[in-house]
Amino acid sequence: MEANFKEKLNQAVKETEAVVYSFLPLEEGCQKTIFEAMNYSVKAGGKRLRPLLMRETYRMFGGKGKEIEPFMAAIEMIHTASLIHDDLPCMDNDELRRGKPTTWKVYGYDMAVLAGDALMIFAFETAAKALAMGADAEAVGRAMGILAEKTGIYGMIGGQTVDVELTGKPVSKEQLDFIYRLKTGALLEASMMIGAVLAGASEEELLAVRNIAADVGLAFQIQDDILDVVSTAEVLGKPVLSDEKNSKTTYVTLEGLDKAKMDVKEISERAVKRLADLSGQNPFLVELVEMLVTREK
Amino acid sequence: MEANFKEKLNQAVKETEAVVYSFLPLEEGCQKTIFEAMNYSVKAGGKRLRPLLMRETYRMFGGKGKEIEPFMAAIEMIHTASLIHDDLPCMDNDELRRGKPTTWKVYGYDMAVLAGDALMIFAFETAAKALAMGADAEAVGRAMGILAEKTGIYGMIGGQTVDVELTGKPVSKEQLDFIYRLKTGALLEASMMIGAVLAGASEEELLAVRNIAADVGLAFQIQDDILDVVSTAEVLGKPVLSDEKNSKTTYVTLEGLDKAKMDVKEISERAVKRLADLSGQNPFLVELVEMLVTREK
Repeated sequence: MEANFKEKLNQAVKETEAVVYSFLPLEEGCQKTIFEAMNYSVKAGGKRLRPLLMRETYRMFGGKGKEIEPFMAAIEMIHTASLIHDDLPCMDNDELRRGKPTTWKVYGYDMAVLAGDALMIFAFETAAKALAMGADAEAVGRAMGILAEKTGIYGMIGGQTVDVELTGKPVSKEQLDFIYRLKTGALLEASMMIGAVLAGASEEELLAVRNIAADVGLAFQIQDDILDVVSTAEVLGKPVLSDEKNSKTTYVTLEGLDKAKMDVKEISERAVKRLADLSGQNPFLVELVEMLVTREK
Repeated sequence: MEANFKEKLNQAVKETEAVVYSFLPLEEGCQKTIFEAMNYSVKAGGKRLRPLLMRETYRMFGGKGKEIEPFMAAIEMIHTASLIHDDLPCMDNDELRRGKPTTWKVYGYDMAVLAGDALMIFAFETAAKALAMGADAEAVGRAMGILAEKTGIYGMIGGQTVDVELTGKPVSKEQLDFIYRLKTGALLEASMMIGAVLAGASEEELLAVRNIAADVGLAFQIQDDILDVVSTAEVLGKPVLSDEKNSKTTYVTLEGLDKAKMDVKEISERAVKRLADLSGQNPFLVELVEMLVTREK
């Protein structure tokens, strides 16, 4: 990574994080515990990739307002909610995430279920605040619709349910594509599409953005599978060969390492080219997408 | 209950149910299981009180469109989602609800967590459909904001978390009021407020509707506590004296039966009077509210 880009990225992540945090609830009143559980989970770290992609897409289409901010917070809240529920004993039963105890380990099983619920609904409560910021009501309503569609049963949650159901069972290429497109891709689609809609992009541009985001999601996920095989625990900061250990079907186990590498290259290049074609105005977004799909950790 | 009103009520519940069902997902495709779990849970029965109150409030203020329908479905979906998660082993650990196996008993612990999540988010996806029905975008956005606010951490979920936290601990009158107002009242407030907003009610009317709904919620909940003490299992269709058995603090244990009865009468009469003052146009809604707060089962 170029030093200059890295610096810009760090700064952008810091700004994004500040925006997300600014919408979190105050830890006071009768519901103090749930507020703490929500904030603990959101503040536990992460790349803040989704709100950042949203902001940069918004800027690419000339967006200059504040109404993007509640949506930036909203998408990170829903992403966090899905991680909290994913970690539950009845799901992945994970006790650590990013080196910290998971929400259910700290606040208990019941509070973790409720904290996930709380963040999901609070995401929409937060997004609705854009209305009071003088944003176009039509665009806000549409953006809320995209947020729900891409995070719901035809998006992220749909992908998760299929993933859960197929755990330990043989998975076809078609099913794996479905899971990747929904579980990882849909949230990236939401991020970029909401940025575009709020900035007033045309229908054609919106469609192009959706296709780019879908490619980025797919390349990102395949790259994840590749790194699990070729990287080291030191570089990744998490155990490698975990997919093999869990007998998990991945793009690499289905297609082989060479084909996976070729595909991720092809899909990435297509996404980056399409993005560059679309925007002359936001080279940082192009660099960001390039980094995501060619990352080594 | 007057025979004529009972007939009207049965008809209205039937119509409401048909509206709610029309927005449920088709049980097909890769995510078939989660669709089935969602539909099983919504179709497991219930009084359909919330969507019905919404529709009747909408009509009271002269609403004549179809855009109320996705919101009717949405509020019932969120109500159902909260029941699914309430029944989980880590919460109330209930195996039966309305005589049927609970969602986690039928679909498993993991799928029940996901089915609740799915219904919460699908509620907002469904509500957003009102935009494509030619409804005023401002009103739809506002109604979605109310839906989130009243079901989230400052509403239903906030009430649930405090209820969970205080289980088995001494509960003050203030805390009990808080739980009742949020856990039961907030969803009723949402139902009636959304009906009012979508029908174009004034700010003053909206505030009046909120106060009426809050009273109805409180009276409804106190009546619940009273019936648990004075009724029989045959009449209620569920075990009585369950609060005592679970050492649960209720309005009756805190205030005594006589005071509880007096209070429910006072609150109910206030709500009914306020409602009658507000609307000459929907006597059915007045009857419905009267029935709710004076019911014997």
